[in-house]
Order: sequence, then structure tokens, then C-alpha cells
Amino acid sequence: MSDLIEYEAACDEVRVVYDDIRATRQTEYINNFWKAIANHPPTLRRTWNTVKEVMTGPGQLDPFVRELIYIAVSVTNGCEYCIASHIAAARTKGMDDELLGELLAIVATANATNRLANGYQIPIDAQFKPEAAKQ
Amino acid sequence: MSDLIEYEAACDEVRVVYDDIRATRQTEYINNFWKAIANHPPTLRRTWNTVKEVMTGPGQLDPFVRELIYIAVSVTNGCEYCIASHIAAARTKGMDDELLGELLAIVATANATNRLANGYQIPIDAQFKPEAAKQ
Amino acid sequence: MSDLIEYEAACDEVRVVYDDIRATRQTEYINNFWKAIANHPPTLRRTWNTVKEVMTGPGQLDPFVRELIYIAVSVTNGCEYCIASHIAAARTKGMDDELLGELLAIVATANATNRLANGYQIPIDAQFKPEAAKQ
Amino acid sequence: MSDLIEYEAACDEVRVVYDDIRATRQTEYINNFWKAIANHPPTLRRTWNTVKEVMTGPGQLDPFVRELIYIAVSVTNGCEYCIASHIAAARTKGMDDELLGELLAIVATANATNRLANGYQIPIDAQFKPEAAKQ
Amino acid sequence: MSDLIEYEAACDEVRVVYDDIRATRQTEYINNFWKAIANHPPTLRRTWNTVKEVMTGPGQLDPFVRELIYIAVSVTNGCEYCIASHIAAARTKGMDDELLGELLAIVATANATNRLANGYQIPIDAQFKPEAAKQ
Amino acid sequence: MSDLIEYEAACDEVRVVYDDIRATRQTEYINNFWKAIANHPPTLRRTWNTVKEVMTGPGQLDPFVRELIYIAVSVTNGCEYCIASHIAAARTKGMDDELLGELLAIVATANATNRLANGYQIPIDAQFKPEAAKQ
Repeated sequence: MSDLIEYEAACDEVRVVYDDIRATRQTEYINNFWKAIANHPPTLRRTWNTVKEVMTGPGQLDPFVRELIYIAVSVTNGCEYCIASHIAAARTKGMDDELLGELLAIVATANATNRLANGYQIPIDAQFKPEAAKQ
Repeated sequence: MSDLIEYEAACDEVRVVYDDIRATRQTEYINNFWKAIANHPPTLRRTWNTVKEVMTGPGQLDPFVRELIYIAVSVTNGCEYCIASHIAAARTKGMDDELLGELLAIVATANATNRLANGYQIPIDAQFKPEAAKQ
Repeated sequence: MSDLIEYEAACDEVRVVYDDIRATRQTEYINNFWKAIANHPPTLRRTWNTVKEVMTGPGQLDPFVRELIYIAVSVTNGCEYCIASHIAAARTKGMDDELLGELLAIVATANATNRLANGYQIPIDAQFKPEAAKQ
Repeated sequence: MSDLIEYEAACDEVRVVYDDIRATRQTEYINNFWKAIANHPPTLRRTWNTVKEVMTGPGQLDPFVRELIYIAVSVTNGCEYCIASHIAAARTKGMDDELLGELLAIVATANATNRLANGYQIPIDAQFKPEAAKQ
Repeated sequence: MSDLIEYEAACDEVRVVYDDIRATRQTEYINNFWKAIANHPPTLRRTWNTVKEVMTGPGQLDPFVRELIYIAVSVTNGCEYCIASHIAAARTKGMDDELLGELLAIVATANATNRLANGYQIPIDAQFKPEAAKQ
Repeated sequence: MSDLIEYEAACDEVRVVYDDIRATRQTEYINNFWKAIANHPPTLRRTWNTVKEVMTGPGQLDPFVRELIYIAVSVTNGCEYCIASHIAAARTKGMDDELLGELLAIVATANATNRLANGYQIPIDAQFKPEAAKQ
């Protein structure tokens, strides 16, 4: 593991990002993900800018729904850190056991049916083909 | 590929499922996924019952949001059939290019940050640990 | 794509492998997988030696069961070529639609339950821990 | 983590499943997987019914072979809980180090050859194409 | 599929990116990847800026090595488009069959050994632990 | 977990491999990966021979670059043991935080763009098609 970079030990490029994380999230707490990737300041800068825009910027999708989608990907990939941190975040935003159960049931079902589709080598219905999909 | 099982050639166990798909979805069309897995009737029955309950049953999550979560998993796994069929389905339910773009941006970002978390071997913050998450 | 290397155009290092594939499988047919990786003869040699030993060498597992395990992995990974070629091979060895259905149902179920375990961040039972497992 | 739901604290819907797990497996022990997903009773019910039918119901595949296939998927996905619990289960059913070694060698080999097929973008042999496979 | 957005039909936000792609790569050709994600201009902008910086910006890694790493990831994930486009790109930069073979052999081997490590549930050596790694 | 097989307790087939690992790497240390897979001596023998040839044999790719490719695969797959051991190894060969950051940025970006390509179902440009790629 690279060191976790604390604010006090950070270079200016990193501090600017930390300040923006704190302002955007309205909390003093910087979680370990950012402190770890701060070992490579350009990756910290790019990643934060993307996450900020994608997860909290304007758009049709409700920020809470964005969290659910993020969790669905992380659970599919088995990323332990991302599962733990984003489920914790979603709980603070109101996700209860019922909703988590619904979410994980969809993720599990999609992972199952994805493999049935793979294994049966199913040809795509003409009407689902990309060319047809928008007509 | 196993044959695609048409209604006319199907056994009773399969027909019961096809009838329920048609009634639930209010369309005569049975897409290739079901016709393929109908080669193993118990798998057809179980899979349909689970998909029906998870994707259309009662719950906190809006059915459209469930579709987005399903697509997020399928895109992460690279399941060509499921991506094509569920994006087509979501378009008929109102997903436009803007919304698809938002969805895929979250999926892409989560896939990226999952790997940063893996690669930096980031320790889970105490407050994100499962034991702490509900307090 | 690299060219597919036909026997006539192959160097001696490749021909030795092709000859052994033909002798081992008792067929003249060399499938495209071997003709493709023959573009890098050391990879061809190593891969064939491993596949031959693992899939057809002595051991407790029946060769047909080994094929099922190989298919389970390929379906999970979504490798189109390997799914097609190994399902075709298993069919010639007696796999019918019933057995394929059973196999894919297990693969689908495992892919689903893997994600429930990920998402619920389930602690491993003491008795399942590696240290305990053999006692 | 959601709480692990013990029998004493469980609602009736969950108790019915726990009773069936105990009867089917002929053991009092309910492992953490079920106690975790019991936080969402419909997911517990559906998952148990599917696992019971797929892993222990009638079929051509020997229950021990089904375990091996389940392990192959879990190892490919890197699901730590499922690997630990199902390898422990297989050991109680007679899997020794030799057999585990054979199984993991196949899983490793398939994961390797899947990527060679991906990377060489190998065209599927005409005779392996789904349409041809059953003729 | 969303439409492929041609320069002539593109909005100004997209044209600015296309112009930069052309200038950076010194070719008129815009490949389908960019034309597809141009359906969501913010995703096009962010993705191009990141790819440009990561793949062509200053750094210790040779741009050709960066391509190899990119291919290794795409082959592992089985992303057909990315495999095809980046192998084609690497060939124009001098990758021959020998080098492609070496690359894919490493990717295949890592995918195999990753699963042996998963399946054997191997404890991390004390000296490889993140805390120790930098001492 | 299977036991870790120490040299003193190992059979001759395993000792031969351990001796070769020590000679090749010029260190007495045998890391846990080899001690674990030594539970199945044929897997140890084959895996070591392949790893030795692929990672340290003659070829165009610098051994350090081979390590980076190996890490890229392991990070994509989320293999904790392989990430820890190979990052530790790369650090002893000179990888600093800057280089690790560059590497992980490429891995993260490729994982993101792979999913954009999946989700947009992008048709492969004619000039990237395997048949065209070598002309």
C-alpha cells in the first residue's frame, strides 16, 4: 500500500482537491480512497472531477439512484472497498435493509441471466438490434 | 445453440410460462431469451418467476430504475444479448440518449474507481466497516 | 486477427504440436484456436501441453466432468469462442439439452449467489475458514 | 453489513426457510450466507428454493459434481465467501488435495485459454457454430 | 445503438473534442468509439481528456507500453471493440506477431495464476503486505 | 486452505521446483503462492515452468514491463494476493509511487472505456477488423 496522504502532508495540488471534496460533501472527512490515490496527484484530480460531475452534477438521474447504480457495479465486480464505502454512504441517505435487498436481488438476477444468455449463445432478436432500437 | 422453442412446439410446462410472460408484459412477443432457456423447462420456470418478482413485483424501487440497475450489471459483465435487449426495453420506456449517457458514465466511473481501490489496496475506513455501517 | 496457421505453412515447432493434437484427439481436424495461437509457437506449445495434461491426463475427475467445469468457467467469463467450441465438443460426447440446462442453471445460480455474498459483505463462518477446513 | 438474522429473532417467513434448510441438509447449522440474506425475506426464499432445486434436486449430474461446478464459478469470480464455504463443504463430501488440485488446474487453464481466444479474436469454426452444433 | 455522430452533425461541444482528437493524433479519422459516446457530450469530453492525458501525456511509461497495458485489460475483460481497435493501433506502432504473442501469454498466465491464488485462499506473505511493501 | 508445503516436508517433485525457483530468483525465499499450489505437484510444476518462461524467458518485452502487465490483469480481476505480491515485487525493481499511479490510471481508464464500448454496442470500424488489421 502506498501511504494515505493526510491534508497536512499534502502538496498544494492535492489540497485543492481535498478542499473541494470537503466543500462539495459538506464534511471534514476525507475517506481513505482519496488519501490513497493522492499518491498520484493527477489521478486524484481527474478522478475527483469525474466522480463529482457524474455522481453529483446536473442530470435526469436522482443522486440516490446514481448511488444504487454505483453499488450494482461494485457488487458485480466484487470490489470490497467500494461496496463497503458506497453501501455505508447509501445508508446515510436513507437506504434500509428492504431497499438493499431489492437492489441486491436485481444485481444477483442480472448476473444469473447474463450467464444463461452467454451459455445458450442466444441470437439477438431483430428488434433489439442496435440499428432497430431507436426506430 | 439449442433450438429456440416456439409456443406451438412447447410442452405444457413451457406454455404456462409463455402465457404468463404474455399476460404480465401485455404483448404477444416472447423474446429469444425465454425461447432459448425453454430447452430446460425448470430453468425457464425458475428464471421467469424470479425475474417477474424482482423486476415487476412490489417494492420501493421504481421499475424503470430496476431496468437501469439491470443494464449497469450487464454492461459491466459485457453480456451482449442482455445489453441489447434491456437497452431496447428501456428505450421503449422513455430512456433517451441523455439518460443512457448518464447511466453509462456512472457505470464507467465505477468500473474505473473499483480498480483504483483494488490497485491501491485501500484499507476500509473504520466507519464504513459493516459492523459500523448501521449505527 | 493474426492469420490462422495451416499445417502446410507451419514451422516444425508448430507441426510437432499439430501432430500431437491429431494423435491425441484422433481426428485430422485442428480447430481455429490452435491455428491462431500458433502465431506464437511457444504459446502454442505450452498451452497445448497444459490443456492435454489437465483435460486428458490421469486424475480422479472424469474427462466429461472436466469439460463441464471448463464450460462453467467460459460461460462465467463470457468467452464466445470457448463457449461455442466446448459446448460443441461436449455435445459430441453425449451432452443433451437436459444436461446443458442443469449445468447452466448451476452456473447462473453461483453467479447470483456470489453477488449476494459480495453485497452483504458476509463474514466467513469460523468453520469454513481455511485453517479450520481440513480439521 | 446487515445483521445476521438468528432463528430466534427471525420472522415466520424466514423461519420456514431455516426449517427447510435444516431438514434438507440434516444439520442444525445455518451458515452466515442465509442469515445475511434473511434481511430480505423474499430474496432468502427465492434463493433457497433455487439453490435447493439446482444443487440437490433430481438430474443427471451427481451432487458432488454440482459442487465442483459451483466452486469453479466462484473461483473465477473471486468470491471469497463462496470459495471458502463451498470448498469446506466439498471437503466434507470427500474432496482431497488431489481433487482440489485437479479442479483448480482446469479452472486456471480455462481462464487462461479464454483470454487467448479473446486476444487473438479467433473466428468460431463453422462446425462449432450454434446452428451446426446439434446436427 | 445510438447513432454515430459525424462531425457535420455534431454540436459545438462535440466538434471541439473531435478537433482535438484530430490534432493530437494527427489524422482526420475519428473512430467509432468517439462517434458513439458523442451522443452524450459530457461523457465524450471527460473521456477524451482522461484518455489523452493518461495515454499520451508526460510520464515514465513509454506510450507503446501504455498501449500494451490497455490491451491487457481489454483482453481480460473480453471487450471486443477495445481489443480490435487497440491491437490494430499497436500494430501500426510496430507490434508484430511475436510481441502480441508475448503479451497475450502474460495476460493468459496472470488470469490463470489469479484463479489459483483465489482457489487456494492463499494468505498474503507478511513481506508483501501493503504496510511492509515500502520499507 | 490447504497447508503451505515447506521444503522440508515436500516430496522430491516439489523440491525440484523449489530449487529452481530459488536458483532462478536468486533468493532462498519461496512465497506462499508456490507453497500453496505445491499441494498438487503437477500444477506446481506446470505453473512454475510457464511463469518462468513467460515472465523471465527471452523476448522483446522488458521483464519490468511484463510485471506491469501482470499487475494490470490482477488489478482488473481484483486478485488480492497477486496484487499484493506483484506490486511488492515491482517496488523492489524500482517502481515508485509515480509509476504505480501511471499504471493504475491506465488500468482504470481501460476498465471505464471497455464499459462505454459495451454499453454503446459500438460496431468495429472496418479498418480495425481482424482481417484488415495486418494489411
